[in-house]
Amino acid sequence: MEKIRIAQFGLGPIGIETLKLAAEKPWAEVVGGVDIDPAKAGRTLAEITGIPSLSGARVYSKWQDLFSAAKPQVVFHTSVSKLAAACEQITPIAQDGVSVVSSCEELLYPQLRDAALAAELNQVCQRHGARVLGTGVNPGFVMDVLPVCLTGVCREVKELHIQRVVNATTRRGPLQRKIGSGLPPAEFERLFQEGKAGHAGLKDSAALIAHCLGWKLTGLFETCKAVVADCDIHTPHVVVKKGQTCGLHQRAEGLINGQVVLTMDLKMYLGAPDPHDACQIDGQPSLHLRLEGGIAGDVATVASLVNAVPRVLKAPPGLLLMTDIAVPSIS
Amino acid sequence: MEKIRIAQFGLGPIGIETLKLAAEKPWAEVVGGVDIDPAKAGRTLAEITGIPSLSGARVYSKWQDLFSAAKPQVVFHTSVSKLAAACEQITPIAQDGVSVVSSCEELLYPQLRDAALAAELNQVCQRHGARVLGTGVNPGFVMDVLPVCLTGVCREVKELHIQRVVNATTRRGPLQRKIGSGLPPAEFERLFQEGKAGHAGLKDSAALIAHCLGWKLTGLFETCKAVVADCDIHTPHVVVKKGQTCGLHQRAEGLINGQVVLTMDLKMYLGAPDPHDACQIDGQPSLHLRLEGGIAGDVATVASLVNAVPRVLKAPPGLLLMTDIAVPSIS
Repeated sequence: MEKIRIAQFGLGPIGIETLKLAAEKPWAEVVGGVDIDPAKAGRTLAEITGIPSLSGARVYSKWQDLFSAAKPQVVFHTSVSKLAAACEQITPIAQDGVSVVSSCEELLYPQLRDAALAAELNQVCQRHGARVLGTGVNPGFVMDVLPVCLTGVCREVKELHIQRVVNATTRRGPLQRKIGSGLPPAEFERLFQEGKAGHAGLKDSAALIAHCLGWKLTGLFETCKAVVADCDIHTPHVVVKKGQTCGLHQRAEGLINGQVVLTMDLKMYLGAPDPHDACQIDGQPSLHLRLEGGIAGDVATVASLVNAVPRVLKAPPGLLLMTDIAVPSIS
Repeated sequence: MEKIRIAQFGLGPIGIETLKLAAEKPWAEVVGGVDIDPAKAGRTLAEITGIPSLSGARVYSKWQDLFSAAKPQVVFHTSVSKLAAACEQITPIAQDGVSVVSSCEELLYPQLRDAALAAELNQVCQRHGARVLGTGVNPGFVMDVLPVCLTGVCREVKELHIQRVVNATTRRGPLQRKIGSGLPPAEFERLFQEGKAGHAGLKDSAALIAHCLGWKLTGLFETCKAVVADCDIHTPHVVVKKGQTCGLHQRAEGLINGQVVLTMDLKMYLGAPDPHDACQIDGQPSLHLRLEGGIAGDVATVASLVNAVPRVLKAPPGLLLMTDIAVPSIS
């Protein structure tokens, strides 16, 4: 079996973990990386990941240099959350006929944010034989793909309600900061409104669900409130005083003709009790799914990216949705 | 949008319900049926289903007559559980370039029962541009596709354990009889050994999971015990005396090198308490899924068959697995 040549675009914590998992797969060969950080460019992936067998794989500051030197077939893209920025980075890769599996939240269902840009990227992919997919655990699985999958045994879906509760104490520092830990509540909520804090991808998950269910939403709204600490909290990454933000309660609602048919409720804060994922379908049959303890974020995100590769390469070229390609499975 | 021309092979209770649901779909046009029962052949589907708009769709006693008259593009096949019988019925349909969505339990992962026969049917499909898929709720979703889907966010799966508890009191007569209701326990267990009673498809589900996870099972064993009534039970369909069979406890185990890594545990009996579906993955991350109340069998089976059609037609020709085609969703 010919191994799939893999490279990494963006060598932050998630990028490095993705590469490490890919390096364990018998079907993958890690051939290089791209990062604009001058402290990383020029080094080998063995130095950056600690995996000795990656001593021949180098980090470049530009895609074109990586492509010329290492000719990857698939690139993991884990550098940005916004669609426009992602498309700018991904388009040159797709133009070289190389496929991309991205953690960019707005790539989950890019038609929501910018349908013209999505159509353009799709054309680039089809013209050059590349596939591009946005995935992860959330968005990418637990609040979208998994509920959609459940509807496959329904003859009718009237309403769909999804909850996720994450105890952020168990998560890494960047996530604890992204949910506002330590900020005055008003400041966190202002940053959320500016798109600079909070969970990215909730509306994108809702839009993917609506697309799969054939629902024409007449409204899609999102709110986010700070969860306020009722005592001082210390984690290895942040210090939160009583009265400061210790996380968020974010919610998206989808409406059809004034009626709420889709709710996505996300609580992610330090010390959140009873972490879990849940989904209720009101339909025929009605279904009640619960994942006790929930799906741990970072491990699952990295696994989602790596596991998607074989399925992505089997799909026809284009800008793909998770629900277009084969059923998820470990690869 | 051109409607998909649908026909039905086998007009038993599940076949009729499948047709009725298909008739509600804006993308489907029901054009006819096949049944060997002389009481059905020659009649219209309007008479058989009670749906007046199907007055132009007729029932034929032979596939060739239906095909000549109605030219369906997709056939629902709901007449048999055994692979050999299914292939005999499906092969002529595929040879006419018509795709088949079947409830035949052994078609879920036909490579388990007869790899040569599966390869032959696959060749027929590819030669004539037809797709064939085996699906349903169980097998086809709750004890196989759904657990596989969960592994998509795992970097490691050490063990997988699946449970299903069905309160058979709420189910239709044929199912109550299939699980042995009213039989002496020894007679039910003998019929199970002969393949004439019990739940069909448990080993097939296990084999599909192993295939998707890349597990080479060194053993796959199935047991089935009668559940014995501890009081008299009357349902609208059966009468069970104390001491007689009121259902089953069926179990499949998959082993790798002497270690049980996969268990499928199915309890289906009259009055079974706490009906649910559950799945535990022991891995990274470990996951604990539970569907409170479980997934109701018949409604969900019919929905699975109908919902699969658009996804099947988008796949390349061949003998397909549920895990080869796109993520399930309501259609």
